[in-house]
Amino acid sequence: IKQTALSGAMIGKGNHRHFMHKEIYEQPAVIGDTLSTFVNPATRTVALQDLPFDLAEVSRVTIVACGTSFHSALVAKYWFEKLARISVEVDIASEFRYRAAELPEGGLALFISQSGETADTLAALRYAKSQKQHVAVLVNQPESSMAREADVMLQTLCGPEIGVASTKAFTAQLAVLACFAIAVARARGKIDTQREAELATALAEVPSRIAEVLADEEAIEALGKSLIDARDVLYLGRGTSYPLALEGALKLKELSYIHAEGYAAGEMKHGPIALIDDQMPVIVVAPHDELFEKTASNVQEVLARGGKVIMMSDAAGIAAFPGKTLATIRLPDCDPFVAPILYSIPLQLLAYHTAVHKGTDVDQPRNLAKSVTVE
Amino acid sequence: IKQTALSGAMIGKGNHRHFMHKEIYEQPAVIGDTLSTFVNPATRTVALQDLPFDLAEVSRVTIVACGTSFHSALVAKYWFEKLARISVEVDIASEFRYRAAELPEGGLALFISQSGETADTLAALRYAKSQKQHVAVLVNQPESSMAREADVMLQTLCGPEIGVASTKAFTAQLAVLACFAIAVARARGKIDTQREAELATALAEVPSRIAEVLADEEAIEALGKSLIDARDVLYLGRGTSYPLALEGALKLKELSYIHAEGYAAGEMKHGPIALIDDQMPVIVVAPHDELFEKTASNVQEVLARGGKVIMMSDAAGIAAFPGKTLATIRLPDCDPFVAPILYSIPLQLLAYHTAVHKGTDVDQPRNLAKSVTVE
Repeated sequence: IKQTALSGAMIGKGNHRHFMHKEIYEQPAVIGDTLSTFVNPATRTVALQDLPFDLAEVSRVTIVACGTSFHSALVAKYWFEKLARISVEVDIASEFRYRAAELPEGGLALFISQSGETADTLAALRYAKSQKQHVAVLVNQPESSMAREADVMLQTLCGPEIGVASTKAFTAQLAVLACFAIAVARARGKIDTQREAELATALAEVPSRIAEVLADEEAIEALGKSLIDARDVLYLGRGTSYPLALEGALKLKELSYIHAEGYAAGEMKHGPIALIDDQMPVIVVAPHDELFEKTASNVQEVLARGGKVIMMSDAAGIAAFPGKTLATIRLPDCDPFVAPILYSIPLQLLAYHTAVHKGTDVDQPRNLAKSVTVE
Repeated sequence: IKQTALSGAMIGKGNHRHFMHKEIYEQPAVIGDTLSTFVNPATRTVALQDLPFDLAEVSRVTIVACGTSFHSALVAKYWFEKLARISVEVDIASEFRYRAAELPEGGLALFISQSGETADTLAALRYAKSQKQHVAVLVNQPESSMAREADVMLQTLCGPEIGVASTKAFTAQLAVLACFAIAVARARGKIDTQREAELATALAEVPSRIAEVLADEEAIEALGKSLIDARDVLYLGRGTSYPLALEGALKLKELSYIHAEGYAAGEMKHGPIALIDDQMPVIVVAPHDELFEKTASNVQEVLARGGKVIMMSDAAGIAAFPGKTLATIRLPDCDPFVAPILYSIPLQLLAYHTAVHKGTDVDQPRNLAKSVTVE
């Protein structure tokens, strides 16, 4: 008999109305469990398992995934590039597998999939193998095809995810990718012990910060109710908040069938701002980091066209933003490095409550399957 | 007195109701003019101007742009990778400039902007220069800041583009990028003389093929009328048709304020298919190339959920597609290499006519400026 890591997650909804709600609430636990396999809290260092190749020698990183996992790959790109100063290419599996990409000798190719069975991602993995890349996978199912075929398996300890719209698997992927980025940065000599300790500490604090965000659910529920009649919603962000905007929009699309779209905030002026009128809710992901001012200036343009802005930021960001928002969601202060994990939570809750108020089938949205094993 | 290349394009609307319509019709001429500076019809070869570096030595290509120019960059990525077997990274300028990307020694960085003044793209260019990249620009305005600061200027000969939504500048960019890809492929020894001659011929035929598409305007006008009450529209494609789907959606957004979104067809199952109901028009860009069958199978899923499919394909594709579409737009046969240029035309016309029937301001959509010189 083989035991699957359930990581405290039991099957059944417990006191929750939906699996998705339960899975949102499991995040402090599953991220804590997942981090415990990579972060040593005593030494405040990050350690991966032994790898069959030298991280310091990796010439380039390619990350391939679909859907929500593609968004965690996009966040990872910013992390790897910034921390480890290594070039990272990210692609959608259904595109990557057919374009016969030129991959560098000694490159690392990483494939992300909750189920480890996503057909396009598995095909992409096989292509990378044929191109002699070091192949790593990040999966939640260690008994999967992708795990079997990889040189290295990184695992999220989420237990089963029943809700079709991914929540805990996404944030747990981010937690692992953050650790991976730190490990590569250290191997390449791009961060010192002190910075590693700061980052490890910031990561270790994520579960309790998430619990704080969850305590704010009531305000987000009311906001979700206010979105049910929206025709469309835009999500904006810069840097690591840009993939978060994509992910927030995808969640709302999947669950509520409202046409939500994520955009890099700086691209608004190049077309999508034409959509803005006084009916259009615009959700802004903007921790008070080095990009905050640039995002705030894009948001001012949205306000000037009558857009209804819902701002997700921390105390400093909310205080610094000069415009009049429809609502703000205040997140706890955190190191900007871990912000993508934390800011996922209100995006999940907002999509969830919008869908509940609309009366759609939250755990099994129309037309969707949990794992996509056809092309 | 300095003369700007007007390339046959006069200022004034002539017999056209809008500048945009006139500019759509100028495409056979301006693409012909632009190609004539790169393609030698007698030898059927492609020649760039003398470059201050050796194309064969280029280790990697980075292409950076905003808005519509970003979509031509995405098409170029597929072309460069497939023909020249060189790795290409593409990014939005407002993201690229802040992420301090690691750029390889001897890399080529290409910046695309109709005006040559786009603020974020110019800042990105300066970053690449500081990182000792070979800096090339593709602009329509040779007297621009970007042209002045680059090592190499490639120019589209479009004459002034007055309509805010770019049409002829986009397809002329594609024409130049196609020539550039051929030149790099030849320098790297990845294509032989015969293939170069085939590609040069395919390009040389583009202007007359575009004229054929324009002759079909009436059918597209009727289709545009049928879209005016759509809440949302999805655009799908794979390979080079994926950026075309993004561009088609952007045009409709800008002009008609309908929330259109482009997607890689293979990503539909990972979320957006939840949006599909019997009210949702889905526009599919699918020349009968090696990806056609995969796209067709994604479209079958859209049909199974009641989506109204408008299929843009050639005779072979239309004959091969087994499902029942709402409408088809038949394009002339062409080498798949030049399909992105040709398929741009019906996407432009469809957005144009939808906007005209809705009564929006086609040449000056709300909230938008022709060139974005602020960040």
